[in-house]
Amino acid sequence: MDSKTPGTTHLTDAQRIDWLRLIRSDHVGPRTFRSLVNHFGSARTALERLPVLARRGGADRPGRICSEEDARAELVASQRIGVHLVAPGEDGYPPRLAELDDAPPLLGVRGLRDALMRPIIAVVGSRNASGAGLKFAGSLSRDLGEAGFVIASGLARGIDQAAHRASIASGTIAVLAGGHDRVYPPEHKGLLAEILDAGGAAISEMPLGHVPRARDFPRRNRLISGVALGVVVVEAAHRSGSLITARIAAEQGREVFAVPGSPLDPRAAGTNDLIKQGATLTTEASDVIDAVEPIMGRPVALREPDDEALASEPGADDRARIVGLLGPSPILLDDLIRMAGTSPAIVRTVLLELELAGRIERHGGGLVSLI
Amino acid sequence: MDSKTPGTTHLTDAQRIDWLRLIRSDHVGPRTFRSLVNHFGSARTALERLPVLARRGGADRPGRICSEEDARAELVASQRIGVHLVAPGEDGYPPRLAELDDAPPLLGVRGLRDALMRPIIAVVGSRNASGAGLKFAGSLSRDLGEAGFVIASGLARGIDQAAHRASIASGTIAVLAGGHDRVYPPEHKGLLAEILDAGGAAISEMPLGHVPRARDFPRRNRLISGVALGVVVVEAAHRSGSLITARIAAEQGREVFAVPGSPLDPRAAGTNDLIKQGATLTTEASDVIDAVEPIMGRPVALREPDDEALASEPGADDRARIVGLLGPSPILLDDLIRMAGTSPAIVRTVLLELELAGRIERHGGGLVSLI
Repeated sequence: MDSKTPGTTHLTDAQRIDWLRLIRSDHVGPRTFRSLVNHFGSARTALERLPVLARRGGADRPGRICSEEDARAELVASQRIGVHLVAPGEDGYPPRLAELDDAPPLLGVRGLRDALMRPIIAVVGSRNASGAGLKFAGSLSRDLGEAGFVIASGLARGIDQAAHRASIASGTIAVLAGGHDRVYPPEHKGLLAEILDAGGAAISEMPLGHVPRARDFPRRNRLISGVALGVVVVEAAHRSGSLITARIAAEQGREVFAVPGSPLDPRAAGTNDLIKQGATLTTEASDVIDAVEPIMGRPVALREPDDEALASEPGADDRARIVGLLGPSPILLDDLIRMAGTSPAIVRTVLLELELAGRIERHGGGLVSLI
Repeated sequence: MDSKTPGTTHLTDAQRIDWLRLIRSDHVGPRTFRSLVNHFGSARTALERLPVLARRGGADRPGRICSEEDARAELVASQRIGVHLVAPGEDGYPPRLAELDDAPPLLGVRGLRDALMRPIIAVVGSRNASGAGLKFAGSLSRDLGEAGFVIASGLARGIDQAAHRASIASGTIAVLAGGHDRVYPPEHKGLLAEILDAGGAAISEMPLGHVPRARDFPRRNRLISGVALGVVVVEAAHRSGSLITARIAAEQGREVFAVPGSPLDPRAAGTNDLIKQGATLTTEASDVIDAVEPIMGRPVALREPDDEALASEPGADDRARIVGLLGPSPILLDDLIRMAGTSPAIVRTVLLELELAGRIERHGGGLVSLI
């Protein structure tokens, strides 16, 4: 279908307001957004149904629904600082990101959209990097840039900074954990300005004014790998944030590259482990290019609407039984459907209600738990 | 068969003299030795046939045949410095080494034979190693020693020395490129004495008095990997000797392990490449132990005599045609047999004659070339 070619979709102004209201409403994450729009056919209808669904899910008090005024104000404020809120399939929405089942329904994009539509490699690593690590991150990013790739990273100190700096001329993307007006760390505002001036871009799924908290970084990391063909981890200690990015990247089907180091260097412990687990050992740009070139040819498939139907109205006993099966330990949706002894449509509907009531949490890999 | 259990074969004194004479005669390497003994049934008969075979192969002057007196003198001199010349299957001949098709027919063994019959891991690397490399080679060898493995290495400066030193208490084997009385480098005589005093061993396939030349080291390297279950390369630059050992180890079906390092460290370039090519990334002893444990259970198979028959006497035209097909570029024996348009037995016999006449060279992988 024509409408599925990246860069050719276009929301109307009214649709964009509805989408923004829905994703900014309480208990609506990217997955719930998709379920709602798939089922009700539009964000507008979903917004109308939210209070009823949340009440059925047992919400103590109704979750806040983002008003049209608030959504309009966010759009205007965003445009004022050059941020465009774009949907999957629209120009400026990185095509690979649109493939994910938790792709942001609206992505705040600042800078040149061209950088976001080209082939992207993510380069990440320790904030507390060694001189050798910083030097290597720079030369690798420069070489990848010269080979035509855009470099994505997290604007952090250390490896991220070195990767951005070395690819300013060829194109680089800063992926933010907070709102576009809440750059973290603050001392990298100048670096971000240079990136944007040189034709790079910054992206965020968070509203303006959102100050990034610790839990926002893993969530942000799925965007770093999500926009990219592959992720290069340059230096990473055991249990570091870059390893979370690598794990998410593998789950997303992205190529994972890791730079080796001495067994005596704790900053290489994480990258050496990644290689043991199957990441591609990387000592030069060609290691990355050779691995991603075969993938680049593959067409990007935007997600079609799911055919996972919802039930019009589950009975009170269905709801009670399903809540009884849930607990604080995450359980697989498929197992829940099997144990519930009712139709998948009813289970999915009850979960959606519970989610909108703020009573369950969805994890990756089809897992859900009671809050 | 009982006689094929490692450590239970025993040559008679007369057989040992014959074997030593045959392997010390001109143009007789381990592979030719095997062909001759397989075909003629004994080293004694092969010795008698050598002059005729070499003459048929077109030798300008007959190759020197080691006399009984010389062989007896070598045995006596060897015993005087504690070197025993042992055959595959005899006690003290490393069982894994006996599996190779170019296993030395007689191996000069000095020290405690027990060390040679236990599971062995080879640890090798640069002479010009970094402090970190030396430290890691030591701690890895110590850990493998504590886990019950004997460490084999080449007694060289750098990584070899560190590996031997760290495993003196648990058992280590020095594999020499020259004769047992020509230790290289000379300043490691003290290290060798410590190894032997502590219950380790030294092995060599060369006669006493043989001063090691450059070309003896690659040949020696096949023994380092040959005695071992696997070879760990700790630090190695591009095109270094340790990489030759790794290549031979892979050809021998040994596990290859490599220690990673920074892409900016030239001493890690070779080991990083090995990992790219499939070697197991190694940062601790368990990486080695986990990989070799499944192999250790496998019974060691001493080579049975080949059933590759030789022809009693090829015609002069066969000989001319085969020589015509050979050139200075190595050619596969199988291709030669196909092109010669005669029986494999005749081709093999002509090659044996040419070899004994010093006119062809055999390479690994079934390749032969005219000298």
